[in-house]
Amino acid sequence: MRYELYYWGGIQGRGEFVRLALEEAGADYVDVARQDEGAMLRLLDGEEVPRPPFAPPFLRAGRLLIGQSANILLYLGARLGLAPASESGRLWAHQLQLTIADLVDEVHDTHHPIASSLYYEEQKPEARRRAADFRQRRIPKYLGYFERVLARNPQGDRHLVGASLCYPDLSLFQIVEGLRYAFPNTMAQQQRAYPRVIALHDRVAARPRIAAYLASPRRLPFNEAGIFRHYPELEAEG
Amino acid sequence: MRYELYYWGGIQGRGEFVRLALEEAGADYVDVARQDEGAMLRLLDGEEVPRPPFAPPFLRAGRLLIGQSANILLYLGARLGLAPASESGRLWAHQLQLTIADLVDEVHDTHHPIASSLYYEEQKPEARRRAADFRQRRIPKYLGYFERVLARNPQGDRHLVGASLCYPDLSLFQIVEGLRYAFPNTMAQQQRAYPRVIALHDRVAARPRIAAYLASPRRLPFNEAGIFRHYPELEAEG
Repeated sequence: MRYELYYWGGIQGRGEFVRLALEEAGADYVDVARQDEGAMLRLLDGEEVPRPPFAPPFLRAGRLLIGQSANILLYLGARLGLAPASESGRLWAHQLQLTIADLVDEVHDTHHPIASSLYYEEQKPEARRRAADFRQRRIPKYLGYFERVLARNPQGDRHLVGASLCYPDLSLFQIVEGLRYAFPNTMAQQQRAYPRVIALHDRVAARPRIAAYLASPRRLPFNEAGIFRHYPELEAEG
Repeated sequence: MRYELYYWGGIQGRGEFVRLALEEAGADYVDVARQDEGAMLRLLDGEEVPRPPFAPPFLRAGRLLIGQSANILLYLGARLGLAPASESGRLWAHQLQLTIADLVDEVHDTHHPIASSLYYEEQKPEARRRAADFRQRRIPKYLGYFERVLARNPQGDRHLVGASLCYPDLSLFQIVEGLRYAFPNTMAQQQRAYPRVIALHDRVAARPRIAAYLASPRRLPFNEAGIFRHYPELEAEG
């Protein structure tokens, strides 16, 4: 099956978590809105869509139209060999993905603590305050959590779930990439506290299909229109 | 099976979305942390828990320990007769639940736009700004979306998914309840724009088991420690 991914053309954003799964699996997919954003907007706003998504990303898979990144990965994980076979394993993988989604929301709000409808420049003092808390409390809380999950995995600390690669592993790679881009000084200081998380990141980056993807033009660079943004003032102390 | 729900004892919070499903189904469950918060904290912080939840709520179902409200409902929906039988229907129901979870996060951030670790009183000016945007833009965006979903349901506008009650219907009831508590003037002004959402709310409230639950001491009142909080200044214009 050829999957159709719909996401904003110029950013990695939440679409990237889906792309990494498709790329790792070598799936046949097309990133529709990179060529034709109108096609995406017609599915978002078209009055004839019976099950409209609230926001991108969404995935067309045959007759299905699936929205919400974690839900897309719930669907794809089972089909792409990136999820456990057991129900308990799938629920656990999905639980971890939802926790990653919560972290992504908090990353977004470091530069948009007041309103998505306003520019960053219209909420800079608030962003500075929120980012300070995020760097000091939330990054340690989340990355410390994933470090514990890896340490406690009865099948070893190379994967979040079980003994083989799972879609939340790919997403955790992206979290480390994004946090290093957005908060390089913070991550340089903190990352030694999460050795298993960093080692997982490094193994994912070295996987042949992921490495090829990252070196390709399909991988957009991080930028200041995405979720992970580098604003040096958001790393300033005080 | 007797389900064990773990959530903070004094608030409805995110646990309420799970409670409503358990109550509607007449499931055998115990709200563990209302009697023994320590039991919850041991599962959260205990070093021997192989799959630790990041935060409450979580559910123990036999040998499973399931975290993240939407993930718990994904699991329970199938077992309690509150989800469609088809995979496409289940994905759609879950997608709607994840969108409700996003809305709940935004409700939380109206009173905590800077940091969960700070008191509301330490972030009041920012809360006022965020709440204004929430009232003016986000409530219409979300409730307008659910109104469209109901209107477009090929099986009628009485349910979000298909022709029978589904767990996101119960959650949307709770959203209306919570928004009316937190932003009564806003809802009084806006709710005529969402007649299908309000009618669904009213039908859920009248269901015998839900009505009995709402009248029971198991239903905690809304309060200013929960997700939906009533601070009159957050409805002030300007």
